[in-house]
Amino acid sequence: MKALVFHGPGEATWQDAPDPALREPTDAIVRVEAVTICGTDLHILKGDVPDVRPGTVLGHEAVGEVVEVGSAVQGVRPGDRVLVSCISACGRCRYCREGAYGQCLEGGGWILGHTVDGTQAEYVRVPFADMSLHALPASVDAADAVLLADIFPTAYEVGVLGGGVRPGDTVAVVGAGPIGLAAIATAQLYSPARIVAVDVDASRLEAAKRLGADAIAVAGEAEPLVADLTGGLGVDVAMEAVGVAASFEQCTRMVRPGGTVANIGVHGGPAALHLEDLWSRNVTIRTGLVDTSSTPVLLRMLIDGRLPTSSLVTHTFELGAMEDAYDVFGRGAETGALKVVLGGPTHDTVTLRDPPEPT
Amino acid sequence: MKALVFHGPGEATWQDAPDPALREPTDAIVRVEAVTICGTDLHILKGDVPDVRPGTVLGHEAVGEVVEVGSAVQGVRPGDRVLVSCISACGRCRYCREGAYGQCLEGGGWILGHTVDGTQAEYVRVPFADMSLHALPASVDAADAVLLADIFPTAYEVGVLGGGVRPGDTVAVVGAGPIGLAAIATAQLYSPARIVAVDVDASRLEAAKRLGADAIAVAGEAEPLVADLTGGLGVDVAMEAVGVAASFEQCTRMVRPGGTVANIGVHGGPAALHLEDLWSRNVTIRTGLVDTSSTPVLLRMLIDGRLPTSSLVTHTFELGAMEDAYDVFGRGAETGALKVVLGGPTHDTVTLRDPPEPT
Repeated sequence: MKALVFHGPGEATWQDAPDPALREPTDAIVRVEAVTICGTDLHILKGDVPDVRPGTVLGHEAVGEVVEVGSAVQGVRPGDRVLVSCISACGRCRYCREGAYGQCLEGGGWILGHTVDGTQAEYVRVPFADMSLHALPASVDAADAVLLADIFPTAYEVGVLGGGVRPGDTVAVVGAGPIGLAAIATAQLYSPARIVAVDVDASRLEAAKRLGADAIAVAGEAEPLVADLTGGLGVDVAMEAVGVAASFEQCTRMVRPGGTVANIGVHGGPAALHLEDLWSRNVTIRTGLVDTSSTPVLLRMLIDGRLPTSSLVTHTFELGAMEDAYDVFGRGAETGALKVVLGGPTHDTVTLRDPPEPT
Repeated sequence: MKALVFHGPGEATWQDAPDPALREPTDAIVRVEAVTICGTDLHILKGDVPDVRPGTVLGHEAVGEVVEVGSAVQGVRPGDRVLVSCISACGRCRYCREGAYGQCLEGGGWILGHTVDGTQAEYVRVPFADMSLHALPASVDAADAVLLADIFPTAYEVGVLGGGVRPGDTVAVVGAGPIGLAAIATAQLYSPARIVAVDVDASRLEAAKRLGADAIAVAGEAEPLVADLTGGLGVDVAMEAVGVAASFEQCTRMVRPGGTVANIGVHGGPAALHLEDLWSRNVTIRTGLVDTSSTPVLLRMLIDGRLPTSSLVTHTFELGAMEDAYDVFGRGAETGALKVVLGGPTHDTVTLRDPPEPT
């Protein structure tokens, strides 16, 4: 088969690779129908995730068709159309039993395109298939569904649920890339009074408005705007969706006493935590890897037309155009790329579509 | 009257001071029966709390008798024996209505011995008397009750409730001073499997054992011990009860994926938050100033003999011996002082008493 193979920092090529085969009775082999590229894949290419070994097939998000299952797999069978979740889960360890699949102690967690071969390929071996695949009706567009492999559950679980968004809240989302936009989209499920999107890029802030942000600010102007909107108190929930210390620290300055900072970003270094200001402010800070425990709910909402997934897909490619897709995605500031989807029907460039009407 | 007046970093004297008088109809004047010294008072003397102005009477904890009330006070009257809480609260603002009295927006919060004259005096003016005083039966020893003005509710609310201690948890308490010891005592209300006390001082670790810690470790040996006790996972809840960056950072290293770090300590500077390790570990970090919303419950427990307050009082003094008491408390490493109580019956040096038998 063909697959995107990582060869060390800065190097990944679309090339021949061995067809995956079943190794454990709980494995399934999936033929990839559609796949996307995550900001985390760019972190891997930069060398920020050193536990990805050269020779690994990248990618942790896909829609596809089951072609083979191990003897212990009971929930899916060959021919089933499935969503491949970014999180694999044994389903039996202490963390899995609490629904914290991302912290699986028995070889699951985020492993695809990380510690085992991933989804940016024609075929992928999915460990723990029963807990790591979700049945997908034929009616659901693959380009929409693939966004539920990672970014929608990540934004919803780590940002919205981790942040504890409540009706009437003022919410700041720092970083209006795909994850931040998905956080803006899903935060509205909890009826906040207003969402403030913060970014350095004007076109991303425009996308944030289309997805439901009530106010936007370039990074340096966010704090005065938030002070103005909240009578000087600060926001109820601040979500970090960039993955750099400066934006995390900005979140800790913008949050009100008693509020929550939800860190969604993938970080490569430490941030300063100003406890001399924060110790007395009753602030909660949460970090989190997605568990994908919300994926079944999000899938039902997608099927009902209540998630604006399509408006995040700006570019589509054939599967074999993987290297071009990385290039367009990696130069998002120039190309305007938010999410790129490979496989299935393609378009030259998908312009931003409006989200569905609220129901 | 006599009072301990702050004159700037390093300087406070027991001296004549004007008798306090009612200023607002919601004020009460309390004659001080017993008072204690808080670690925060030492921070003020070091100059760490720059908003305490020279001329301020220090102290934010007392037991006393109401001698005069303003026209709007309804809950107490002259002659009532009361606990003076470290937190004053208007009772009407947004935060007070949510029970977050420490964050009161209308002039309450931690104000006694901070922004207004405090309790280390013969008399004290208590603003918002209805919400800031608690009726105290004559049967309760003043030296026990005064510990409920700050350290017990602080340890319980910020450490135990903020940390979300649950049955079966492994809990680490870093810092076995009075606050850490009160956290060890009150964490047991939630039936953790084990409590690990961490300190640099052997006598404080012995006190921690008497108060119910199951394991003790000097600071440098805590992490291997915790790893050993938890199969390498880390503790469910780590409480910081020192107020320095190193112990906060140690808490973030000792907490398990999915666990909580509760910061109780008063900090004068930032800590490094290692998001490169923590981003994917589903960690919750909470800070907090006490609200004293738990004080009524803790008082009932004290009356029922279920709080080991006495075992924390190592030294008692006459009220006029305030400067001696500061000296003994400030040199706790040499003197073995945990809490010093002034006023009421005195003893030369109270040795550590055993906590009450568990019921």
